[in-house]
Amino acid sequence: MVTAAVPQVVTFAVEPGSAVDLTAFDPRARPVGPDAKTGAAEELRQFGAELERLQEALYAEGVRGGQRRVLLVLQGMDTSGKGGVIRQVAGLVNPQGLHIASFKKPTEAERQHHFLWRVEREVPQPGRIGVFDRSHYEDVLIARVDELVPGSEWLRRYDEINDFEAGLARAGVTIIKCFLHISPGQQRKRLLARLDNPDKRWKYDPADLDARAKWSAYQDAYAEAISRCNPPHAQWYVVPSDRKWYRNWVIGKLLLETMRELSPRFPSAHFDVEAERARLLADDPLR
Amino acid sequence: MVTAAVPQVVTFAVEPGSAVDLTAFDPRARPVGPDAKTGAAEELRQFGAELERLQEALYAEGVRGGQRRVLLVLQGMDTSGKGGVIRQVAGLVNPQGLHIASFKKPTEAERQHHFLWRVEREVPQPGRIGVFDRSHYEDVLIARVDELVPGSEWLRRYDEINDFEAGLARAGVTIIKCFLHISPGQQRKRLLARLDNPDKRWKYDPADLDARAKWSAYQDAYAEAISRCNPPHAQWYVVPSDRKWYRNWVIGKLLLETMRELSPRFPSAHFDVEAERARLLADDPLR
Repeated sequence: MVTAAVPQVVTFAVEPGSAVDLTAFDPRARPVGPDAKTGAAEELRQFGAELERLQEALYAEGVRGGQRRVLLVLQGMDTSGKGGVIRQVAGLVNPQGLHIASFKKPTEAERQHHFLWRVEREVPQPGRIGVFDRSHYEDVLIARVDELVPGSEWLRRYDEINDFEAGLARAGVTIIKCFLHISPGQQRKRLLARLDNPDKRWKYDPADLDARAKWSAYQDAYAEAISRCNPPHAQWYVVPSDRKWYRNWVIGKLLLETMRELSPRFPSAHFDVEAERARLLADDPLR
Repeated sequence: MVTAAVPQVVTFAVEPGSAVDLTAFDPRARPVGPDAKTGAAEELRQFGAELERLQEALYAEGVRGGQRRVLLVLQGMDTSGKGGVIRQVAGLVNPQGLHIASFKKPTEAERQHHFLWRVEREVPQPGRIGVFDRSHYEDVLIARVDELVPGSEWLRRYDEINDFEAGLARAGVTIIKCFLHISPGQQRKRLLARLDNPDKRWKYDPADLDARAKWSAYQDAYAEAISRCNPPHAQWYVVPSDRKWYRNWVIGKLLLETMRELSPRFPSAHFDVEAERARLLADDPLR
């Protein structure tokens, strides 16, 4: 079951330079793509097969000195599905070509360093697809909402983030930033589901409700981060995430279109193929 | 298609204290398990479903302070299938719970440090399944065969490796070490296949034939490493690897049995479930 027309995931991109109002985005919107779970899962499997081949070529480029790589940044409120995307979208490709990094509220030790210190260490190597489960944006989100640093500090961070991402782009990193947009009602449902299932309770933290109580402050902080840090080389996508299957489909498609755009090529031989074949066949003491 | 009796993968384990003669192991042996590719692939898929659940529980333990983790060490000659195992066995589980590290011939910079320096940094965090694509054993393999360090040095390394692995075991790391055993004839076939397929040529390096020319020296070095570093808490398995599907099945089964043995449990709630449910339902400003 494949939809007839190629859906344009670009529809979720935030226009650079625009001020974002997140209340204008519907977390259940479904402007393109499949209209049911089954079709979406089937398409995602197909994306996987194509992604895996593209990923292998990108990896091969990296082995032979190429610098290109991809960084998928996942941000969103608790239960918005960052972990689900890693399992079901990143899980489609060869784990050898993946680099996954999680960023929690910075520890005391991390706060002794510049806020980008812990992030720079996790930038994917050439040829890899990196996935950030939360990211440097925490430093203008929780750091702002919970006033971990003074306002002058987090205000300056927007510029530092822009400089950092510009540097990554120059170094060959294609950056895709996704805000997984859920409604408070959907979050309540998912938190309840975690409480109801003994095997899921480990994912629940009473502190989640403290963050939930500051929902509006977080939405404001997200809106400002998205508005201020959204250059054409590191754009934000607002991904409707109240439906898990649709969220996975959108991000899978986004990753696939990004990889198609990069169009990595298997490097040609850096040696004489015929000579090597002859060497292997003729002069083989172990035959 | 599931084989009737539970196969004992322990049959591939090298007896601690024994001197290993690799020529006594048949790279096409198939003493247990499925007898055809289709059945093996189907079983591997089933292992995956069970592994994923066990892995999630181990990960959950780690989140709540547990220290247990798994380290799968893959060693073998070029083309023995270390990458294939990562893609097809490690690829069965959630990439968020995986940590994959590759070790090549040590760089000049790495050789300025103790040989375990680069390895210690890649030990999996609690709750994770780590996979080493080559490992600290390179330092008693290529380092010995190519005489990168004097004999007195690599001889001492066996003891240092034993101490290192004993420390890991005490810290909660369950170590599984696999030697992917292939025949020189099978390696020739696979190297030729890399030369024949333009999309696979990037995997070929003329230096591979130099290592191949030292086949016996490598087998001796492997045999000695396996014999000397094979305590009950960090045993070697000699995995017949001339058949890719059988190799994957054996290692998948080994990982599954290891995880079953660990029998990780989802942690119980560290909070009052009913109180949290009431808090979430009743006092919800965002409802």
